[in-house]
Amino acid sequence: MEIDTTQNPALRQLTQRLLSSSHCMETIEHLDGGRLPSSDAVIDILQNLKDLLFPGYRRRQDLRRDNAAQQMGELVDSLHRQLSQQIARSLCHRRRWDDSGCGSQLSGVPSHLRDEGREIAVAFLETLPNVRELLVSDVQAAYEGDPAANSLDEIIFCYPGLEAVTVYRLAHQLHRLGVPLIPRMMSEWAHMQTGIDIHPGAQIGPSFFIDHGTGVVVGETCEIAGHVKLYQGVTLGALSFPKDASGKLIRNQKRHPTIERHVVIYANATVLGGQTIVGAESIVGASVSLTKSVPPRTVVTLEKPSLRFREAA
Amino acid sequence: MEIDTTQNPALRQLTQRLLSSSHCMETIEHLDGGRLPSSDAVIDILQNLKDLLFPGYRRRQDLRRDNAAQQMGELVDSLHRQLSQQIARSLCHRRRWDDSGCGSQLSGVPSHLRDEGREIAVAFLETLPNVRELLVSDVQAAYEGDPAANSLDEIIFCYPGLEAVTVYRLAHQLHRLGVPLIPRMMSEWAHMQTGIDIHPGAQIGPSFFIDHGTGVVVGETCEIAGHVKLYQGVTLGALSFPKDASGKLIRNQKRHPTIERHVVIYANATVLGGQTIVGAESIVGASVSLTKSVPPRTVVTLEKPSLRFREAA
Amino acid sequence: MEIDTTQNPALRQLTQRLLSSSHCMETIEHLDGGRLPSSDAVIDILQNLKDLLFPGYRRRQDLRRDNAAQQMGELVDSLHRQLSQQIARSLCHRRRWDDSGCGSQLSGVPSHLRDEGREIAVAFLETLPNVRELLVSDVQAAYEGDPAANSLDEIIFCYPGLEAVTVYRLAHQLHRLGVPLIPRMMSEWAHMQTGIDIHPGAQIGPSFFIDHGTGVVVGETCEIAGHVKLYQGVTLGALSFPKDASGKLIRNQKRHPTIERHVVIYANATVLGGQTIVGAESIVGASVSLTKSVPPRTVVTLEKPSLRFREAA
Repeated sequence: MEIDTTQNPALRQLTQRLLSSSHCMETIEHLDGGRLPSSDAVIDILQNLKDLLFPGYRRRQDLRRDNAAQQMGELVDSLHRQLSQQIARSLCHRRRWDDSGCGSQLSGVPSHLRDEGREIAVAFLETLPNVRELLVSDVQAAYEGDPAANSLDEIIFCYPGLEAVTVYRLAHQLHRLGVPLIPRMMSEWAHMQTGIDIHPGAQIGPSFFIDHGTGVVVGETCEIAGHVKLYQGVTLGALSFPKDASGKLIRNQKRHPTIERHVVIYANATVLGGQTIVGAESIVGASVSLTKSVPPRTVVTLEKPSLRFREAA
Repeated sequence: MEIDTTQNPALRQLTQRLLSSSHCMETIEHLDGGRLPSSDAVIDILQNLKDLLFPGYRRRQDLRRDNAAQQMGELVDSLHRQLSQQIARSLCHRRRWDDSGCGSQLSGVPSHLRDEGREIAVAFLETLPNVRELLVSDVQAAYEGDPAANSLDEIIFCYPGLEAVTVYRLAHQLHRLGVPLIPRMMSEWAHMQTGIDIHPGAQIGPSFFIDHGTGVVVGETCEIAGHVKLYQGVTLGALSFPKDASGKLIRNQKRHPTIERHVVIYANATVLGGQTIVGAESIVGASVSLTKSVPPRTVVTLEKPSLRFREAA
Repeated sequence: MEIDTTQNPALRQLTQRLLSSSHCMETIEHLDGGRLPSSDAVIDILQNLKDLLFPGYRRRQDLRRDNAAQQMGELVDSLHRQLSQQIARSLCHRRRWDDSGCGSQLSGVPSHLRDEGREIAVAFLETLPNVRELLVSDVQAAYEGDPAANSLDEIIFCYPGLEAVTVYRLAHQLHRLGVPLIPRMMSEWAHMQTGIDIHPGAQIGPSFFIDHGTGVVVGETCEIAGHVKLYQGVTLGALSFPKDASGKLIRNQKRHPTIERHVVIYANATVLGGQTIVGAESIVGASVSLTKSVPPRTVVTLEKPSLRFREAA
C-alpha cells in the first residue's frame, strides 16, 4: 500500500515553497504560455522536410513514381500548415519578450501574426529547390572525401555530417527570414542527434563535408566558402567577447572566423576570432589552436610531441 | 513462406550454447531480477522534475496561474511515489551486490527498504527549492556568457549545457543522500542527450556555464567554484590511478582537479589530477593539457603552432 | 480558419519544381524502393541482440531461470526471421547499386537473395557465443580500469563505452560476413547514442575499454590488440587519401593505425596513418597528435604549455 501523499505535510509544504519562490519564477517560469513553438511539432516539421528533400529514404519509403506527385503535394501542404502555426507562435513569443503586447492575451495568437506566419512559411518553402541543390553538392563532397563510403545511399542513410548539414541549411533559411527561436530549436535537435553544433546564422558554401563530426562547433558569424572539409571536434569559435561601456556583451558582431575554399581542418583543431582568416587550400592539423590568420596554401601543425621511455615496472 | 525456425537444429543448438555459457553468465546475466531500477521510470522522473523546476516550458505547457498550485501539488505527489519505488529498488540491488540477502527473494522489495525509499524521496524533494535557485544562477550565467543568446527562454529551451547541469544538480542530491545506481543512470541519460558527462559526485558552485558542451567530462571528485565557464570537449579528469598493495585500484580518493572561481577553460583543453588546482580568474586555452597547478590570473596556452607552405600541386 | 493550401498556386508550383529537379533526383531520390533495410527494424534487431547477450538487463527484465530457455529460444527464432529479411534487402540493394538487375523489379526480393539472407543470418547468430565472451572481457576491463565504477551492473547499465563496443562487436561480424549497409546503420546508431564512432571494419582485440567516449573515432582499417584503453575524443584516423591515376580515391587500403596491447590513449589525442604503429604498453597523452610510429613503452606528451599572467583589470 502506498501512503496517501496528498496528506503528507512535508510534500504540501514543499509545493508551497516551490510556488512561492517568486524571484526564481521571473527567470524560469513560463505560466500562461501555451503559444510557444512546440518542440515535437518542430521535430516533425524537420522529418517531413527531409522526406521532401530525400524522397523515399526516410519515413515515407513507399514512394513510387506513380504516386510521388500526389504524395509530395500533400506533404508540401501539410508542411505549410505546420510551419505557419509554429512560426506565428514564435513571432508572438518574440513580441512578448520585446515587451510589446501579446503576453497578456490568453485567447491565442493575434490574426496579423498568423498572416505573417503563413507568408513566411511560403517564402521558406520556396527556398527548398535551392537547398536541395546544395545538399546534392554536399552528398557528392562526402563521397569524394571519404574512402570508407561505398555508395551515395550509405551517405544519405548513415552520415551524421549530412544530417547536421541538412538541418543547418533548413534552419539557416528560417534564420534569414527573421524567424525567432525555431531555427535554434532545429539546430539543437541536430546537435543532440549528431554531436554537431552549427549555428543557423553561419554562412556555408556548397560541397561542405563534416566527417564523423562529434564535437564540431560552427559559430553564428562564421563564413565558410565552398569545398571545405571538417573533421570531428573542430571548433570555429569566438576568441573573447567585447563589452560596451556599461559592461554588457556586444551582440551582433563578427566574432567567428572566415574559412576560404578547399580548406581541410583535422580533428579537434580550434580556430578562433572574428578577424581570423584561413586562406584557401590550407590544412590545419589535429589539435592545432589558431587565433591568427594564415595565408592560402599554409600547413599548420602542432609542435612535435615530446617522447620518453617508461622505466621497467 | 518463412521456414519454421523452431525446428532449425542450428538455432536450437545455438540457444543451448548461449544458455550454458555459465562462466559468462556470472558477469553479464541478470536473471531473477525484476527489482532493478527501471531506465524508463528514471527518465520519466527526470522529465517530471524538469516540469517542476521550469514550470510551463517542458511537457506541461498548459500551466496557468489559476491551476498551477493544483498541478504542481499533483506533480510533487506523483514524483514522491515514483522516486520511493525506484530508490527502494536501487537499495535492494545494492544489498544484493553487497552479498547480504535480498537477491534470493522473489517476492519483491522488503518493507524496511520501501520505508527507507520513501524517506529518502522526501529528503530529496526538499532540496528542490535550493536546486532551483542554483539553476536560476546558471541560466543567468549562460545569458551573460554567450552573445549568441537572444533571450533567457532560448537558453531554457535550447541549451544542452543547461540540460546537463540541471540533471547533474538533481543527480548530485540523490548521490549525497546515498542512493546507488540511479544518479549514474540519470547522468548517463544526460550524457547521451547532450554529450556532456558530469559525474553526480562532482561538486559544482553557482553560475556554472557549459557552452556547446559536446565531449565535456567532469570527474567524480572535481571541485568547481562559482562562475566557472567550460567550452565543448573540456576534460576535468584523472591522471593515473593508484593501486593498493594487492594491485587493485584504490577507489574513493580525490583524483580530479579543483577549479577556482571565474575560471574559463576553452575547447578541448584537459586538466588532470587530484592535486591540480587552477587558480581563480585563470584562462586555459584550447587544447592545452594541464597536469600541474597554476596560480590565480594565469593564462595558459599551447606553444604556437608550426607553419609551412604547401608546394604547388 | 486555415486557408485551403491545396488551392495555393505558390505551393502547387513549388511541388512541381521539386518533382522536376531531375538532375538532383538521380543523387538523392529513392523512389520505387521499398526494399532498403529499415532503420527501425535494424535498431530493433540490436535491442533484441542485447537482450540475448545481457539477459535480464535490458528490455526483458522479467527473465527467470525457469523461463529463460524458452524465452531465449523464442528470441533466437525471432532474430533469425528479422535478420534474414533485412539482410536479403541489403543484398538486393547492393545488386541495384552494382547495376545488375533487381532495381527494376517491383515485386519484392528475389528468392535466391532471401535464401542467402537466411544463411547469413544463421552464420551470424552462431558467432554470438564468441561475441559474448569478448564482451565479458570488456566489462571486466571497464571495472578494472575505472575507480568510479561501483559494480559490474553499473557498467552494463550505464557505460556508453560498453554500449558502443557491444554494437561494434555485432556489426563487425555482419561486416565480416559481407553484409552491406546494415553494419554501418548499426554503428551510426551507436554513434548517435554514445558519440563513439567505431567503423565495423576495424579489428579490435579483447578487454577493450573506452571511458566516457564522446568524440572517439576508430577508422575502418584500424588494428587494436588486447587490453587497450581509450578516453573521450581519441581519433584513430587516416592521414591523407592516396588517389589513383585518374584522380579517384583508392578505397580498400590500410589507412588507419595499429595499436599494440596494453596501450592507453588519453583524451582528444589523435593517431593518424596506416603505417603508424603505437608500440605495446605505450601511453599517448591528452591532445597529442601522432603521425609516426613509436616503439613499445613510450610516453608521448605535448610540449609544455606556455604560461603568462593577466594584468590587473
